[in-house]
Amino acid sequence: MSRRIYLKMKTLLEAQETFLRRWDLERMLSGETIPTLESAGRVTAAPVFARFSVPTFHGAAMDGIAVRAEGTFGSTPESPRRLTVERDAHWVNTGQALPPGTDAVIMVEHLHQIDEATLEIQAAAFPWQHVRKVGEDIVATELLLPQNHLITPYELGALLGAGVLEVEVKRRPRVLVIPTGNELVEAESLRGADAPPAGRVVEFNSWVLVNLIRQWGAICDRHPIVPDRPEALRRVLLQATAGDYHVVNAGSSAGSEDHTADLIEELGELLVHGVAIMPGKPTVLGEIGGKPVVGNPGYPVSAVISLEQFVRPLLLRMQGLPEPEPEQVEAYPSQKVPSKLGVEEFIRVNLGRVGERLMATPLPRGAGSITSLTRAAGFLRIPDTVEGVTEEKPQRVTLLISRKGVERTLVVVGSHDITLDVMANLLKKYDPEMALASTNVGSLGGLLALRKGNAHLAGSHLLDTETGDYNTSYIRRYLPGVEVKLMNLVYREQGLIIARGNPRGITGLGDITRPDLSFVNRQAGSGTRILLDWRLKQLGLDPRSISGYEREEYTHMAVAVDVLSGTADAGMGIYAAAQALGLDFLPVITERYDLVIPAVHFEGPLVQTLLRIISSDEFKNQVMALGGYDVRETGTLIPCC
Amino acid sequence: MSRRIYLKMKTLLEAQETFLRRWDLERMLSGETIPTLESAGRVTAAPVFARFSVPTFHGAAMDGIAVRAEGTFGSTPESPRRLTVERDAHWVNTGQALPPGTDAVIMVEHLHQIDEATLEIQAAAFPWQHVRKVGEDIVATELLLPQNHLITPYELGALLGAGVLEVEVKRRPRVLVIPTGNELVEAESLRGADAPPAGRVVEFNSWVLVNLIRQWGAICDRHPIVPDRPEALRRVLLQATAGDYHVVNAGSSAGSEDHTADLIEELGELLVHGVAIMPGKPTVLGEIGGKPVVGNPGYPVSAVISLEQFVRPLLLRMQGLPEPEPEQVEAYPSQKVPSKLGVEEFIRVNLGRVGERLMATPLPRGAGSITSLTRAAGFLRIPDTVEGVTEEKPQRVTLLISRKGVERTLVVVGSHDITLDVMANLLKKYDPEMALASTNVGSLGGLLALRKGNAHLAGSHLLDTETGDYNTSYIRRYLPGVEVKLMNLVYREQGLIIARGNPRGITGLGDITRPDLSFVNRQAGSGTRILLDWRLKQLGLDPRSISGYEREEYTHMAVAVDVLSGTADAGMGIYAAAQALGLDFLPVITERYDLVIPAVHFEGPLVQTLLRIISSDEFKNQVMALGGYDVRETGTLIPCC
Repeated sequence: MSRRIYLKMKTLLEAQETFLRRWDLERMLSGETIPTLESAGRVTAAPVFARFSVPTFHGAAMDGIAVRAEGTFGSTPESPRRLTVERDAHWVNTGQALPPGTDAVIMVEHLHQIDEATLEIQAAAFPWQHVRKVGEDIVATELLLPQNHLITPYELGALLGAGVLEVEVKRRPRVLVIPTGNELVEAESLRGADAPPAGRVVEFNSWVLVNLIRQWGAICDRHPIVPDRPEALRRVLLQATAGDYHVVNAGSSAGSEDHTADLIEELGELLVHGVAIMPGKPTVLGEIGGKPVVGNPGYPVSAVISLEQFVRPLLLRMQGLPEPEPEQVEAYPSQKVPSKLGVEEFIRVNLGRVGERLMATPLPRGAGSITSLTRAAGFLRIPDTVEGVTEEKPQRVTLLISRKGVERTLVVVGSHDITLDVMANLLKKYDPEMALASTNVGSLGGLLALRKGNAHLAGSHLLDTETGDYNTSYIRRYLPGVEVKLMNLVYREQGLIIARGNPRGITGLGDITRPDLSFVNRQAGSGTRILLDWRLKQLGLDPRSISGYEREEYTHMAVAVDVLSGTADAGMGIYAAAQALGLDFLPVITERYDLVIPAVHFEGPLVQTLLRIISSDEFKNQVMALGGYDVRETGTLIPCC
Repeated sequence: MSRRIYLKMKTLLEAQETFLRRWDLERMLSGETIPTLESAGRVTAAPVFARFSVPTFHGAAMDGIAVRAEGTFGSTPESPRRLTVERDAHWVNTGQALPPGTDAVIMVEHLHQIDEATLEIQAAAFPWQHVRKVGEDIVATELLLPQNHLITPYELGALLGAGVLEVEVKRRPRVLVIPTGNELVEAESLRGADAPPAGRVVEFNSWVLVNLIRQWGAICDRHPIVPDRPEALRRVLLQATAGDYHVVNAGSSAGSEDHTADLIEELGELLVHGVAIMPGKPTVLGEIGGKPVVGNPGYPVSAVISLEQFVRPLLLRMQGLPEPEPEQVEAYPSQKVPSKLGVEEFIRVNLGRVGERLMATPLPRGAGSITSLTRAAGFLRIPDTVEGVTEEKPQRVTLLISRKGVERTLVVVGSHDITLDVMANLLKKYDPEMALASTNVGSLGGLLALRKGNAHLAGSHLLDTETGDYNTSYIRRYLPGVEVKLMNLVYREQGLIIARGNPRGITGLGDITRPDLSFVNRQAGSGTRILLDWRLKQLGLDPRSISGYEREEYTHMAVAVDVLSGTADAGMGIYAAAQALGLDFLPVITERYDLVIPAVHFEGPLVQTLLRIISSDEFKNQVMALGGYDVRETGTLIPCC
């Protein structure tokens, strides 16, 4: 075990240039001939010329009769002319070939039928009127598509119409993704299992990479998990690069990364080891057997950012495909975001329009969090020369969802409750274009977010220990002068979450000062913490006598997980969290959980859609099914402030 | 044959509402369970909950040693503490499970190795430092994805990580496209043929529709061509709708359209027949057996617009997929575009940035032109309440290519020459992101376009009959005060294009007044027309004595096609056009063809890239291979103005 040393560390731009300029990307893929029918989305490898003209014959451009124009000259309303069908005039439908000897079409609207065989016209036809002539659209031999051109469905039609049944297109690049790591297990092997074996991790990174790479037009295969041993990886790397594969090694740990770097150095050339970006630093770039080989960092966010920065441009440029131009918006960070000098940071954010301003709420920055990828609506890049961004100045944010999606995101910041999941799901059910982005910062944090204009609404259960009432006194104190609506969401059971079967014999809150018990707390400012402190005071218990009082979690579920995994014997939280993980629960109090909604947002379409869902029986039934909830006042407004 | 009557004609909006509101789109597709590995791009049919927590165990978040935090309390630089490996401290790599009894990680960077078995630390570890705890990312039972959610590659990873091996997604809709028409032939049947049989048309519309429909997430099959007989179509429609297909009938003519409308009325319900849009008017919308049935217009542009307006929203909403939000730009029409009141028009345009302004050049409006689709960079919609748009006012244009593509389009307006194809191809070869958009309006039209600021450069071969020089006097007259660069592109042979083998025994220009010959002319203002008129004058021939003198075409190839198809015996044009179609050619004159480039555009990157290509041997060789060209001065600047 030694400290990792990056001998070939580079900035993002240096690393991209070193890696991408290494290859003659435009000539890297040879051509292959494929049926035109399968060519949509492929890129031409050579210019394509028309075989036939389109149209291939002179055809009627209107329904009517085909005539020889000369024979109609002199017709006027005053001296109409009579034409005999099948001698002077021939019925034609749009698209039909002109009969021999005719060179114009008279529209059916301009004909007077005298009898079955006789028609009258009142105007002359000029030659070639309403005729689609040979080659009007495409002339045989003309250039239909240049090389390096992405074939659209329209163009596929033009190719077929011009008789081109095969086209030469660039081969699709082949990529092999190799997951490497001793602790990894295949997801498939866990069918029916309660959990992965102790200490083992479900391998999923490679599948994320495979699916991204396929979106970029490559044929992408995945190798089964390779153990983290140089000799095993060496064999796979040599086989793959000999077999015409470009390789992405999805190593799961620093160990794998070092092996990849060493093996590239041994078998080919190591170009880059370490890139000054975060996440994504432990990227390895090199070549074996003339093929690009990428060592991808092990954490999911790092892996994706590294892949998008190096593998995406490689594959797209190789195919002559345009690089995406993601939309960007200007958004205000909902909080200050510090950043290290010398490292370019990619910060994933939630986005939503709150009033006039687009707000960007940073997601957890841990590179290990796959949910910071799945929940992100965009990301902001903090250059290596900047120490961070502040709330005052809007920042450029690159969108990962549509602009419309951003406009239709309801931003909820505040106390955590499991019914938020039910809401999020029903919102999508009834309006697939809407989304709910929630951030758990506790009840007080929610009120502060509303004061800053960062959210549409906040969930709050702040007990006023003087009056026994909830929320109103806090709203008056923290949102002075802000007109808000206060709406009950639920009543819910708060209590002690303890291990199943209560192995430590805990009887109630009074026990938690027992020296043999370890407790897990919620963060200061959360409603649950206020509730706990109030009950402790009522019971005359000293917080300092509780082992683990200073250990804080941000959600009910995190507390429940601590109990489940044995790192704590008890924690305060809602019944539904205990229930979800099959834990025992000792009730302490029934509390009120409300939504605080500034009046300026209340009538908006996003909030109104949410309120309709909250008032529905479907919502109430699903909430009741979670356990520990009471919906008797759900959706009713509470006089306030 | 009767005039088509639209009994159920509607505006676009009415038609969309009638058709789309007919179906309970959100419930139209049932769910199916598929492996998570194949779920990227699919839409959830039910909420998805986590089976496992992620991580499933407490793991090291850094490389270093796992310790029990309590055992490190009190360590400082002044009183460091020694730890014995495998008793007090356990080496761990990032991601590894914490050994039992440990609850914190100390980074390898903060360790001093005393010997193999002894480490020294100078600071205490706090509990759970550098530890990724169970459920930090995902807690078992939590909502991973709501229903109606499009699954991304990231989310596929989160699902696998949380042990979700199968997901319930919406079935993909199945669509059958049925080409109908008696004149249609399968492209495949023309393998090896010189041309389609007389009067027959290669069927390609259905394939355009199939490929578009597949882009919208549906499974789309194509039926072989169905003859245009009600009994044949009735059978196919009944089978398809019974077999769970949504149907798009790609009829090729008004006849097919009428049959579709009648059959829908007979077998189900006809909702719309005729929509007030252009192109796209003959759209038929209805239902058979509870399934949507669409009668698509026969012309390719109409077919695509109708499909995009009705079938795309149907399929996307059915699947809960977001409708695309195409980018829009403001662009100046390069010419006045009239439009009929009462009809909403979709005008396909080329786009390019010329100086400060984005210019939109309308493409041919004929609904039969597949190339007006393949060449379009965008379209502008002229509402039914407006009579057209003018050059003065910028119009909103919906992009069909990327914004970057627009910025990198070189706009060429002026005389037609076949070497423009060579240029367009080499541009793409060396810079796949560039494009060349050329419009043939003749040499004089090109100069006028430059005067209006509508193009980057113009091709011109205007003979000054006084001096025998080309272009300069015209530039002085038509571009007064505009600084331009004049660059020679080629010298080329102009002459009479005549049928192969010269069956009419034409000996030269002197023959074209022969009463038994028909001529085809180029449009007034074209260089070729000026050349012809000058030679006729020299020869003392009266244009009025030429049969067909008033018949005008806009390109050399169109003239050649007229000769090829026998609608003219001779026309004036360049050798390369005759050569391309295998026609005979009687030389008349060698002329100079130049590029006129306003100085303001000359140094720009687009023009400079073009000039590098023009100067290359590759360009010159390809031009020489066309025949009838001389490249001795290609790329040299000509003193001018």
